Amino acid sequence: MLRKNEKELQWLYGKHAVKAALRNPEREIQRFVLLKQSIDFQKECGTTAEIVDGTFFSELFGREAVHQGCAVCAKRLREYRLEEIIEDPADLRPLVFLDQVTDPQNLGSILRSAAVFGARAVVTTENNSPKLTATVAKAASGALEIIPLVRVVNLVQSMKFLQKMGFWSLGLEEKASKILSEVPLADKFVLVVGGEGTGLRRLTKESCDFLAKLPTGSSLGTLNASQAITVALYESLRQRENAGHDA
Amino acid sequence: MLRKNEKELQWLYGKHAVKAALRNPEREIQRFVLLKQSIDFQKECGTTAEIVDGTFFSELFGREAVHQGCAVCAKRLREYRLEEIIEDPADLRPLVFLDQVTDPQNLGSILRSAAVFGARAVVTTENNSPKLTATVAKAASGALEIIPLVRVVNLVQSMKFLQKMGFWSLGLEEKASKILSEVPLADKFVLVVGGEGTGLRRLTKESCDFLAKLPTGSSLGTLNASQAITVALYESLRQRENAGHDA
Repeated sequence: MLRKNEKELQWLYGKHAVKAALRNPEREIQRFVLLKQSIDFQKECGTTAEIVDGTFFSELFGREAVHQGCAVCAKRLREYRLEEIIEDPADLRPLVFLDQVTDPQNLGSILRSAAVFGARAVVTTENNSPKLTATVAKAASGALEIIPLVRVVNLVQSMKFLQKMGFWSLGLEEKASKILSEVPLADKFVLVVGGEGTGLRRLTKESCDFLAKLPTGSSLGTLNASQAITVALYESLRQRENAGHDA
Repeated sequence: MLRKNEKELQWLYGKHAVKAALRNPEREIQRFVLLKQSIDFQKECGTTAEIVDGTFFSELFGREAVHQGCAVCAKRLREYRLEEIIEDPADLRPLVFLDQVTDPQNLGSILRSAAVFGARAVVTTENNSPKLTATVAKAASGALEIIPLVRVVNLVQSMKFLQKMGFWSLGLEEKASKILSEVPLADKFVLVVGGEGTGLRRLTKESCDFLAKLPTGSSLGTLNASQAITVALYESLRQRENAGHDA
């Protein structure tokens, strides 16, 4: 299906992901396809689609994909450099650093939380992190178009660079002695989160200014990376809003 | 595979889900199967498994299932009645009411958040809510064994019953004027959340004592039901812990 410039193009499916891509002026849309029964979705998107049958979807995405009868083939978005993200010194929004989060669904949910709770960007390593597939886009529910993704070669180096630029870094760590709400999250900071099951790698952990855990009300282990980030970004937004009210 | 008592038995897969089921004294385990390469998992579980091949898994669960090479066939857990859940008057933990949350992954994540942040039970309607499948159990990551699930015929009736029993109810609603952290969440309450895309139904909304929204830092709509619940349960636990410190 992606004959030329295959690497520059990608398919996205799911209503939120498709609508957000169509609305994003930086996306070059090559095709917009719908199942006949999803034809009304054209109006919502304000643009005309090509009608295809179910086989088209199942061949492209497999049978399990929750495509909701719509998809676009679009040019990939450019990835950002860390320097670009921190250009505005007045921007207090946190950055999210992912240390070996490999699950595409999780990455998608993380982008979504980042968009909802006003994070600035999501930073992953070039290796051991998911490609921006349709699965990521679907789980991101449109956030792929909003939240810049930065891929860096070395996470620790990039944390140190940001520390020099006035950001402090908070690692989420199950065994930490501090609890999240005891840490000041209204200032410029980087939230660092490890992969499910593995947690933060030793060197990443040692490079954090603070470590904190989430409060938990039971014996059941931890949330997944995406849920933990959701909570930490919420806590940061809550503190920024409180600081705003006090000011 | 499930010849007799088929309705009473269920397959669960994924390491956390399998281990939690094996440890749960209320689970009657019929079979415990592993891929040869996952044989070490036996030790972690402290029990011997039957070795099966990949076809066994793909035929039972499909090719997309992230089964991690392990599964158990076990008796279904009993479902609870609302009256049982609220027997202890000293129990301050919130209950989570789901109004038409239909996605099995979402239900699984909700059970997981409920376990981590100390909710008492998850309540759904008998109709329009997912069955407790292997997908739910995998996403719940062991929480299916910990958090009682209650199915009620009529959500609004059950909310009213709990209101009479001294619980107040908070509905999460995008257009609410109050923000979550402005609502007191340290007392007995029921958290009511609607399905993604649909939100709370009119009658459900009207039966809530309070409506509140999550703070959001951007223009991107809302979190999914599971993420919204994670945040609300976190906020409740934070407030309960603060109240505890003050007391």
